[in-house]
Amino acid sequence: MFKQNKILPNALYIQSGGMTSVINNTAYTIIQTVKKYPEKINKLYAGIYGIVGVLEDNLIDTSTLTEQELEGIKNSPGGVFGTSRYKIKSLNDDLPLYKKLVNILKKYNIHYIFYNGGNDSADTALKLSKISSTFNYKLCCIAVPKTIDNDIACTDVSPGFGSSAKYIATSLYEASIDLKSMCKTSTKVFIMEIMGRHAGWLTAASAVWKEKDSDPPHICLLPEILFNQKKFLKMVSKYVNKYGYCSIAVSEGLKNENNIFLSNKKMSDSFGHVQLGGVALILSEMVQNELGYKCHYSIPDYLQRAGKHLCSKLDIEIANAVGKAAVEFAIQDKNNVMPCIKTIQNKPYKYQIEPISLNQIANVERKLPNDFIDEENLTITTKCKEYITPFISGEIYPKYDKNGKPFYISFT
Amino acid sequence: MFKQNKILPNALYIQSGGMTSVINNTAYTIIQTVKKYPEKINKLYAGIYGIVGVLEDNLIDTSTLTEQELEGIKNSPGGVFGTSRYKIKSLNDDLPLYKKLVNILKKYNIHYIFYNGGNDSADTALKLSKISSTFNYKLCCIAVPKTIDNDIACTDVSPGFGSSAKYIATSLYEASIDLKSMCKTSTKVFIMEIMGRHAGWLTAASAVWKEKDSDPPHICLLPEILFNQKKFLKMVSKYVNKYGYCSIAVSEGLKNENNIFLSNKKMSDSFGHVQLGGVALILSEMVQNELGYKCHYSIPDYLQRAGKHLCSKLDIEIANAVGKAAVEFAIQDKNNVMPCIKTIQNKPYKYQIEPISLNQIANVERKLPNDFIDEENLTITTKCKEYITPFISGEIYPKYDKNGKPFYISFT
Repeated sequence: MFKQNKILPNALYIQSGGMTSVINNTAYTIIQTVKKYPEKINKLYAGIYGIVGVLEDNLIDTSTLTEQELEGIKNSPGGVFGTSRYKIKSLNDDLPLYKKLVNILKKYNIHYIFYNGGNDSADTALKLSKISSTFNYKLCCIAVPKTIDNDIACTDVSPGFGSSAKYIATSLYEASIDLKSMCKTSTKVFIMEIMGRHAGWLTAASAVWKEKDSDPPHICLLPEILFNQKKFLKMVSKYVNKYGYCSIAVSEGLKNENNIFLSNKKMSDSFGHVQLGGVALILSEMVQNELGYKCHYSIPDYLQRAGKHLCSKLDIEIANAVGKAAVEFAIQDKNNVMPCIKTIQNKPYKYQIEPISLNQIANVERKLPNDFIDEENLTITTKCKEYITPFISGEIYPKYDKNGKPFYISFT
Repeated sequence: MFKQNKILPNALYIQSGGMTSVINNTAYTIIQTVKKYPEKINKLYAGIYGIVGVLEDNLIDTSTLTEQELEGIKNSPGGVFGTSRYKIKSLNDDLPLYKKLVNILKKYNIHYIFYNGGNDSADTALKLSKISSTFNYKLCCIAVPKTIDNDIACTDVSPGFGSSAKYIATSLYEASIDLKSMCKTSTKVFIMEIMGRHAGWLTAASAVWKEKDSDPPHICLLPEILFNQKKFLKMVSKYVNKYGYCSIAVSEGLKNENNIFLSNKKMSDSFGHVQLGGVALILSEMVQNELGYKCHYSIPDYLQRAGKHLCSKLDIEIANAVGKAAVEFAIQDKNNVMPCIKTIQNKPYKYQIEPISLNQIANVERKLPNDFIDEENLTITTKCKEYITPFISGEIYPKYDKNGKPFYISFT
């Protein structure tokens, strides 16, 4: 593609949107895979704070990183290079921004972009891909999937989901066992608020090990099912009477029967998404006021997406796999695609990676399928459990120093 | 002591109060240590749901447990035998209860009690010890320390503290790195609400790895220091301006300048303690309203005391050590004592275990010493960090099955 240039092209890696505990594994693999093709790509740069840093000419040359820094990257949560929530307009609506960007790309001789993000980021990558034709500047854009929400279209799972799902399932199981041990004379109800604005994948994951009616969580309040207060309170009461306690998983995006978020927060982020939080408190007060049960609630918030201290083996494996595929697609001139995971079989889990056009992915949200939801019993189906199980299997731990401090790094 | 009885006495193990992630390690060690003295103690029973179960004649004979169950005990969070929050009155105030209890003890030939709890439980153990003289029934009462709050008097550390402290320090570090990576265009402030009603040990632990002013958490709001809103907001603003973000640890027991809990919750538990929760939400709204910074908050709640998935090595070691010492003290006829940890040296950490009279321990709360608190900078001192470090060092993980489910058990 670029042979005629004689000077080898460089590449750019960008982290985008909310972080996952394994996005840096993808970053690490992209850095290492690029090194395997010295005849195709010269250097890999990374934007500091994502696309925002790129627009400010704030880039880091990853070829200067030490072995210890490289090890630190795959060991760390967050986004080691920094990320941004910044929705760029289309080329027609903000030509000056694109001109600025093209100048930066030219300055660094960048002809490949690896855009590591979710649905919004796939849209951004698609917009950037228009640069090629408009500015007559060869640019290959590859979106690399990442989100704890598991809502990216066209991929059977999103890297980042498995580790958050594992954190949530483990944490709610642990808290439920604690609750169970003290329910006779103390707290009877525990509620855990889980991320996932519109898609209930993570909330569903809390119930992945549930086999019997007595197993926690007893109630899963998914964002796909409108909240019915009467039914909810009746079920809480039933479980407390039957088993002495009731353990509840609730999505931050739970909506009432008028399709309005239960949460009382009114803030919104830079994409105009309503910032949620607080539904656990609302349900907790409801349970205490209406049923008189002592109730505790947990809102892990960022803890559930930054919990590098307990990652899923398969999640890290696929986070690495999409990084490797992204570089391979780039050097095969596969432009405007995302490496997507396609499940071949579930037991044992086998997958392959396919390039899917960004047109099919951008701004599409993959919700929990209807046959994954047991609406009657406010829980998930066996099919859903079978889907989630491989992604939370196997434990990967970070490295710690002798004082128990995990060896985490950051370039921001 | 009991040689004249010919029939060997039995012992009783009781879990009490709020759980820790390592109390079951103490339970396991007590079970196994009792087996080493077959000439002194016949059987060890455990109360189901603690003292409440004992009063209902609900006991389990631990000699019937399988090898797999025993392994499961030390692998599990919560209290495998169940616990209770039940404050018994003194013998003079509730003679019928004591008569009932003595009947149960006689029925099972129980002459040793291992009461595994915190300050309230030491008081209960002390009350039970009066049975001996009043009913002319030989009874040896040993309180065994346990609490995440680290507030038990006379012991240099409480088993359970180290693992919760490790969970908190690790989780806040992870969330802070996530925050730092996205602060340029999104959330600027993160607040984590930490347990510890009156003593700031766990909140302090969040800052154990802080070396530089830029290291998170930037602000530690301890319950020992009354909250000053003006100073707090000024500091938040300073850190956001200086480093782009501000990470905050706050105790659930934070009080305002009128010595009133900031938290808006009005519930109280069976000991009359006010049930706290919600201070993170109050501070978050304060930061958003007064400074306009996007703010996230986390309330781990039970997750911080049930996080068996990441335990501290030394914490598990001392949880085992107090269990072993408890049995040894009992067979040495050391009545009405608690095995307490006495630090010999800090680097490397060495300790010994001493029997301390329950009179010195019951209902006394050990607060954070003044020289552990840097009130000026709302953080902790080097001395405090040096104290905490050994207790959070070393990682112990539970066993998981092939589906990623931790192997946890419960007898309730």
